[in-house]
Amino acid sequence: MADKTLNDLFLDTLKDIYYAEKQIVKALPKMAKAAQSGELKAGFEQHLEESEGHIERLEQVFEILGKPARGKTCEAILGIIEEGKSIMDEFKGTDAIDAGLVSSAQAVEHYEIARYGTLKTWAQQLGMADAAKLLDQTLSEEIATDQKLTKVAESNANRKAA
Amino acid sequence: MADKTLNDLFLDTLKDIYYAEKQIVKALPKMAKAAQSGELKAGFEQHLEESEGHIERLEQVFEILGKPARGKTCEAILGIIEEGKSIMDEFKGTDAIDAGLVSSAQAVEHYEIARYGTLKTWAQQLGMADAAKLLDQTLSEEIATDQKLTKVAESNANRKAA
Repeated sequence: MADKTLNDLFLDTLKDIYYAEKQIVKALPKMAKAAQSGELKAGFEQHLEESEGHIERLEQVFEILGKPARGKTCEAILGIIEEGKSIMDEFKGTDAIDAGLVSSAQAVEHYEIARYGTLKTWAQQLGMADAAKLLDQTLSEEIATDQKLTKVAESNANRKAA
Repeated sequence: MADKTLNDLFLDTLKDIYYAEKQIVKALPKMAKAAQSGELKAGFEQHLEESEGHIERLEQVFEILGKPARGKTCEAILGIIEEGKSIMDEFKGTDAIDAGLVSSAQAVEHYEIARYGTLKTWAQQLGMADAAKLLDQTLSEEIATDQKLTKVAESNANRKAA
């Protein structure tokens, strides 16, 4: 036990976000389908493509570590997605559905921002500059997606619902 | 079903974060106890006090709505806290424990940032300026806490673990 180090924590967290990204890739098409506005639908579809790129980057980080790319059940993302599903069920067909979808998507983004931020810092501290760069690229994309969602929330989706 | 509006979504999400804050208040003393560095321990204790203030603000928002302050099981925070517990168990007594605690705390903060950001925007759109102000105060504190945690991550906690 006492021998566990930041290297182990890094690998554990990498497996956690790898699993999370795969869950997100499964959830996004359902979110796109549920969205009313074309803008939001297109946004989810674009983020799906991006997320597939994030999975590839994570696989490169596993390769740098010399470890097989393997996920580890991430209770956090399962809970976040579960809440998103409840909102989809409860607000399906109402004018508030897009506001709810944006809110769920932002909870997902913030989870990813937290994890990628942590992983990037640890990669730097562990002297893995290439891994840090890959993680930082994804982090920047997650932050950009969250900002886009905030704009949608402040304009279309919510005004319509109100 | 088709009658559900942004008002309902606002109330649902308010109940969600109210439940989440209460779970966080239960988790923080355990995190403070597990922390090795005095700085991190103090940080968690300070955030505990702040979180109690956040609960009071949420109760004021319920009052503005004329609804009883009541939580609703939040699967997301349960998942995030569950992951934090796993890290505490696995890295207890190791030099990586503080890095793990900071990481867990940042996942919690980001969940709160997502939810308070959403609630603030909706309060504005629903014409509840006082509620928006209360939610914005908490949002600012959560962002400040996350930034403090990033500084800890970049200095003590992680360097020690590496």
